[in-house]
Amino acid sequence: MTATDWGRVKFGSDGLVPVVVQDVFTGRVLMLAYANAEALALALATNRGVYWSRSRQEIWVKGATSGHTQRLVEALLDCDGDAVLYRVEQTGPACHTGAQSCFDPAPTDGEDA
Amino acid sequence: MTATDWGRVKFGSDGLVPVVVQDVFTGRVLMLAYANAEALALALATNRGVYWSRSRQEIWVKGATSGHTQRLVEALLDCDGDAVLYRVEQTGPACHTGAQSCFDPAPTDGEDA
Repeated sequence: MTATDWGRVKFGSDGLVPVVVQDVFTGRVLMLAYANAEALALALATNRGVYWSRSRQEIWVKGATSGHTQRLVEALLDCDGDAVLYRVEQTGPACHTGAQSCFDPAPTDGEDA
Repeated sequence: MTATDWGRVKFGSDGLVPVVVQDVFTGRVLMLAYANAEALALALATNRGVYWSRSRQEIWVKGATSGHTQRLVEALLDCDGDAVLYRVEQTGPACHTGAQSCFDPAPTDGEDA
């Protein structure tokens, strides 16, 4: 882990900070997620991709259900403290659609989803 | 540009969508910014990094003041339509601190900022 001063994180009025997630090997941007203070602390303590699920309103350990876990290699905070970058080793696809990245174009009609 | 269906974008209650910005040559994540519908439309129409400045509350054409412009090579929307990825050719440093990326560690004491 880096010597980042995590006390510098500025959480939004909803208690969340956006987290950009990048594959450390391929450099691909895999997803954008959110963390609250607890999720960020858990991520840093366990070296795993841990987030706050806005849809389920709960701590979300990426891959806990799917097995598509993330090993957190490096976590970085941006210049003004309001965005985080997780650099991860991704096991399997990062996206719930089965795509490697959530930014992959959606399959066209006729392809298996 | 891709054949992304930009009508699928889900702007937040503040009218903004987060935009991850990645250097298309180095793969580095340069910054996280925000766009409203107008900024996104301008970015796509002009192939430039255009955002909504939350601090100044105005459209922000990256580099208009600093000269550190971004040519928008590709813009992608994520699986659930609530995050955008700009892949750009960055001229000069992306960060207002002079760092190449806003996620670069801050200079330590004694270094020139």
